[in-house]
Amino acid sequence: MKIKILTLFPNMFEGILGESILKRAIEAGICSVEVIDMRTYSLDKHHHVDDTPYGGGAGMVLACDVVDRAIEANSTSNTYKILMTPQGRPYHQEIAKELSSKDEILLICGHYEGFDERIREYVDDEISVGDYVLTGGELPAAILCDSIIRLLDHAIKKESSEDDSFSNGLLEYPQYTRPAEYKGSVVPEVLVNGNHKLIREFRLKESLRKTYLRRPDLLENRELTKEESKLLKEIQEELGKH
Amino acid sequence: MKIKILTLFPNMFEGILGESILKRAIEAGICSVEVIDMRTYSLDKHHHVDDTPYGGGAGMVLACDVVDRAIEANSTSNTYKILMTPQGRPYHQEIAKELSSKDEILLICGHYEGFDERIREYVDDEISVGDYVLTGGELPAAILCDSIIRLLDHAIKKESSEDDSFSNGLLEYPQYTRPAEYKGSVVPEVLVNGNHKLIREFRLKESLRKTYLRRPDLLENRELTKEESKLLKEIQEELGKH
Repeated sequence: MKIKILTLFPNMFEGILGESILKRAIEAGICSVEVIDMRTYSLDKHHHVDDTPYGGGAGMVLACDVVDRAIEANSTSNTYKILMTPQGRPYHQEIAKELSSKDEILLICGHYEGFDERIREYVDDEISVGDYVLTGGELPAAILCDSIIRLLDHAIKKESSEDDSFSNGLLEYPQYTRPAEYKGSVVPEVLVNGNHKLIREFRLKESLRKTYLRRPDLLENRELTKEESKLLKEIQEELGKH
Repeated sequence: MKIKILTLFPNMFEGILGESILKRAIEAGICSVEVIDMRTYSLDKHHHVDDTPYGGGAGMVLACDVVDRAIEANSTSNTYKILMTPQGRPYHQEIAKELSSKDEILLICGHYEGFDERIREYVDDEISVGDYVLTGGELPAAILCDSIIRLLDHAIKKESSEDDSFSNGLLEYPQYTRPAEYKGSVVPEVLVNGNHKLIREFRLKESLRKTYLRRPDLLENRELTKEESKLLKEIQEELGKH
């Protein structure tokens, strides 16, 4: 997979791409990530990329011609072009899976202060990583990179990504590692005993419990298996007793 | 405001903090951001910070004692301690506003693969920036920094942040800047004419239209003013005609 990022702040990505799973995936040739300074596509001799808004108001607006030229120069008919904007469709794990099957992705980081509305005409998709305001699309683009790349074959161990929160539509079950006791708080007995069947059931039940208590909205759109329904009923009864 | 970040990947923040509004706010003394390597709190001579999970499974789990010591050494009774985790409460602009009034914030970046459940006992809050899986809490912590710092006094021009998407519960209205015509696509007449009353109404209506079409969920929990109700009715009628 090839990812290109159009940004006004290319330095922001240095640390992000130089660490951890992203670094390893890039070095292993699983994907390439190229960061491109949009400013080089300004025809203005001072390399201006934004201007005051028509109709007045605070803030500068990213100009459509600069972005159009930058997109043009960095995409082919095979490139899936995504504008990072708080007005886009809300990002979630299913979209990450969908995007991880693309060959070429171009991420366009808007000024969050504002970009010319006509830029929308040049992209295939608009994505928002959440309902909050950021300075620019750089962190959102980094979030897409991280969440997509870790789904690529060989980027991380497969079993590892399958257990993550949201991967099966539930929050992850509680994890524990050594020490077995810390400041009076101990690891649940069932995890130390090592009966695989009981451990599996414990994890599924606690995963359901956490989702039910913290994010009941995730359960609304998810069909439960017979076992899950039974466990959820147990959880509800346990909670009712207190 | 003082922000401290506990992480296993301190280098990830270099580019992020060195650019744009964050850089300016830090240089102007509006806030300070300190990035701390959690690894220095490992007592192990190889500076291990994680270990295999009790009960088996893929991935490594961040140990509670290391994190506890790191929190202890970097917080006071006045510090608001937030664990970045996909299992936390979903972040949104109202939480950013709430957090922007704190004096001291400590952000703890978990491994997203897993952290010892007992770590939850040492924090005041758990926040998720969205329903997707990332490698670690570093990008989410950067998102909190960016969204909080831009709300601090003098970090950006006030009028600028008030117009943003979500700030008034709606998506932002469309913006335009020069050129007035680009590849046949023109700026709406009303913005070029410069009648302030009409421009204000156009922007409010388009803001409502965008929210209604793209994120009707945002309108569900928001009370509309008389003017907004009237404009929304107009929008619905216009859409009904097509």
